[in-house]
Amino acid sequence: MQELIQVASNGLLDRRAFLRGGALFTGYVIAGGAAAAPLADAPWSKSAGSNSPTYEKPSRFEDKVARTLSNPNGEPRTSHARTPHHLLNGSFTPNGLHFTINHSGTPDIDPEQHRLVIHGLVKRPLAFTLDTLGRYPLVSRMTFVECGGNSAPLFSPQPIQATAQALHGLVSCAEWTGVMLSTLLEEAGVEPKAKWLVAEGADSLALSRSVPLSKAMDDAMIALYQNGERLMPGNGYPMRLLLPGWEGNMNVKFLRRLKLVEQPAMSYYEARTYSQILPGGKAYRFYFLQEVKSFITHPSLGLKMKGPGFYEISGIAYSGNGRIAKVMVSADGGKSWAQAALQTPVLPKAFTRFRVPWRWDGGPAVLQSRAWDEAGYAQPTRAAFVAARGETPAPFPVTAFANQHFNAVTSWAVDAKGEVSHVYA
Amino acid sequence: MQELIQVASNGLLDRRAFLRGGALFTGYVIAGGAAAAPLADAPWSKSAGSNSPTYEKPSRFEDKVARTLSNPNGEPRTSHARTPHHLLNGSFTPNGLHFTINHSGTPDIDPEQHRLVIHGLVKRPLAFTLDTLGRYPLVSRMTFVECGGNSAPLFSPQPIQATAQALHGLVSCAEWTGVMLSTLLEEAGVEPKAKWLVAEGADSLALSRSVPLSKAMDDAMIALYQNGERLMPGNGYPMRLLLPGWEGNMNVKFLRRLKLVEQPAMSYYEARTYSQILPGGKAYRFYFLQEVKSFITHPSLGLKMKGPGFYEISGIAYSGNGRIAKVMVSADGGKSWAQAALQTPVLPKAFTRFRVPWRWDGGPAVLQSRAWDEAGYAQPTRAAFVAARGETPAPFPVTAFANQHFNAVTSWAVDAKGEVSHVYA
Repeated sequence: MQELIQVASNGLLDRRAFLRGGALFTGYVIAGGAAAAPLADAPWSKSAGSNSPTYEKPSRFEDKVARTLSNPNGEPRTSHARTPHHLLNGSFTPNGLHFTINHSGTPDIDPEQHRLVIHGLVKRPLAFTLDTLGRYPLVSRMTFVECGGNSAPLFSPQPIQATAQALHGLVSCAEWTGVMLSTLLEEAGVEPKAKWLVAEGADSLALSRSVPLSKAMDDAMIALYQNGERLMPGNGYPMRLLLPGWEGNMNVKFLRRLKLVEQPAMSYYEARTYSQILPGGKAYRFYFLQEVKSFITHPSLGLKMKGPGFYEISGIAYSGNGRIAKVMVSADGGKSWAQAALQTPVLPKAFTRFRVPWRWDGGPAVLQSRAWDEAGYAQPTRAAFVAARGETPAPFPVTAFANQHFNAVTSWAVDAKGEVSHVYA
Repeated sequence: MQELIQVASNGLLDRRAFLRGGALFTGYVIAGGAAAAPLADAPWSKSAGSNSPTYEKPSRFEDKVARTLSNPNGEPRTSHARTPHHLLNGSFTPNGLHFTINHSGTPDIDPEQHRLVIHGLVKRPLAFTLDTLGRYPLVSRMTFVECGGNSAPLFSPQPIQATAQALHGLVSCAEWTGVMLSTLLEEAGVEPKAKWLVAEGADSLALSRSVPLSKAMDDAMIALYQNGERLMPGNGYPMRLLLPGWEGNMNVKFLRRLKLVEQPAMSYYEARTYSQILPGGKAYRFYFLQEVKSFITHPSLGLKMKGPGFYEISGIAYSGNGRIAKVMVSADGGKSWAQAALQTPVLPKAFTRFRVPWRWDGGPAVLQSRAWDEAGYAQPTRAAFVAARGETPAPFPVTAFANQHFNAVTSWAVDAKGEVSHVYA
């Protein structure tokens, strides 16, 4: 048995510990040798079960693992559906639970009728059907999409008591398969004057955003598949623009048009909602990048801890700059830190699950995670972040105050009863 | 524009070609500059769409992307639900479409009541709830699960005209997150006499299989999550044994018991269904490994090709031995071969999507793929395979003939009309 090494205060253990031999885990053994035939008389073991469906859905016992809706009655305003990160584990988001934000509902698009047009400052204006795009060389990549307004509740001067889903549920990660936009633009023949493209959706408000040509020629994709199957309706079916690492709203869904232009269009969503106002009254004109970020999902608010002993602390880290280089975890509010294990493969601009073994002694603890990316950027503390960007009273979202691109540290306090609360530390 | 290099006969192009410049793709452009505002008057662009659901499902236009059921009325016999590989793309299988085989239906298990017991030749018999297992150190890994009887229709002396779903739909790939079985066995303390364990499910027939202790201590996992969310009901909710690269049936679902023993139990499913009989009358006692295999999904039977021009040939390769090292593709029935591009990351015992650019001249073609794994094994030709293992007339499955562990090459013939058929070549 390898010795277990505490590497930071308040019970954080070395991530390389094998954690074998029983001493750590006795507290979790709930029955002994007498239970040799466990629950053979359970009702589900006594008669045949249900028939297989053509499309499998989660167990009825997992009904609480659902997206929370900001507009459950479908009123004529924006609808948010948030990912329940505290109830998931692994490296990406299943399609049923990927977050969505739609400003005029989810259009019911007939894929046979849908067209994508590339025009404007090009030599050959082109139009494509879903079928013709599917004949092009395809690529698959795992990448996160995050709303610029994700985590906005942490701009509040007082910590809002809410789950990781409510605080951070507007980010998800999936494997997207589609055509590199550079391939289509090379085919259209971009005029030298073109520096931007305006991407437009087929939803009823024709949501549009301007994208620098350099990003379009770098890693932008027209995504046709999400986690192996066609895009979910709320995620842009039948096709969306994918700009890995950039503000969610720019990844235009239900994509029907790309117009090559000289200057950005200053469309509604880029000129109003997503122009971040700073404490001095100035504003970023554009803020495309989703910067390095992490948060702990286990334990977190809403997951009650059942007595002292061993727990795994785990969470999600990601950066629009590329791969996660390192995640540090603290159990004492940032006084001491242990390096987390990163689940491999660590992919660029994708979720990286981090994990640290923790022996909770039953006393108070404040759990934090802090991530670094391969470009050298570190996730800021909340204090440093709000000093630069400001604070904003609830309710959210609000548009005249700081409410965008929050990427600072989240802190969870654990009390002696095992209850978890949201704190600023 | 980079020159396009034909690297094998009948139009197979170099996988490194950038495929830019328009010359290749003119055939897929369906409209020109006049279509600058494509379908702005489509009905879905004229009024707000539907409300977001708490759990997202595919578009109604994708109803055909479904599992096919061998027992749609739930009669008291085995139920197969097959993955529609020809309608998917990417590197793994979404949870709604993962294949399942259940011999007595899907049990409706209450996770609060379910227990996993480890007993037999151990120092400390142990029992676990789902919650206590969730506190252990978790790991995530992408791996395929394949039924030993997948592809059995290819034992037929005549090629059966069926889709990739019908022929190969009993394999799928997912990211599984759970506890390494070695961690739990170290905690229980395995007696030196123990060489096998018998894994038993909580379904009504208590399906059980014997597993060598060496595999249990290597990469076996008690899986708790599938693609980020809890296991699907048909895939073993709330927990299953995962034996990466080994025969699907051994990955016991609804796992309730692991008994450490000296000898294999010779249970029903290992002594009868999965004991492969060879042409000379002998049989393999066990055949755990799912060997290196590949098949083309695009184009394939059921996907009609729309005229000559550019297509991407793509498919899936995998091996229970580890990573895929190489996939070669032929368009002339095996006379000449081009090396396919492998979608990265290439992970051990997981699906690897391969892709080759192809310019179809409209003439007859026979498409084949052949995979090699990092252990040096090559996927056999069908002729070599059936010489060793035998052929078996339909219908399938049959148990007195060869019907297990088919991993040879699949051949798709394309005729001048663009229809695809299944052939032996």
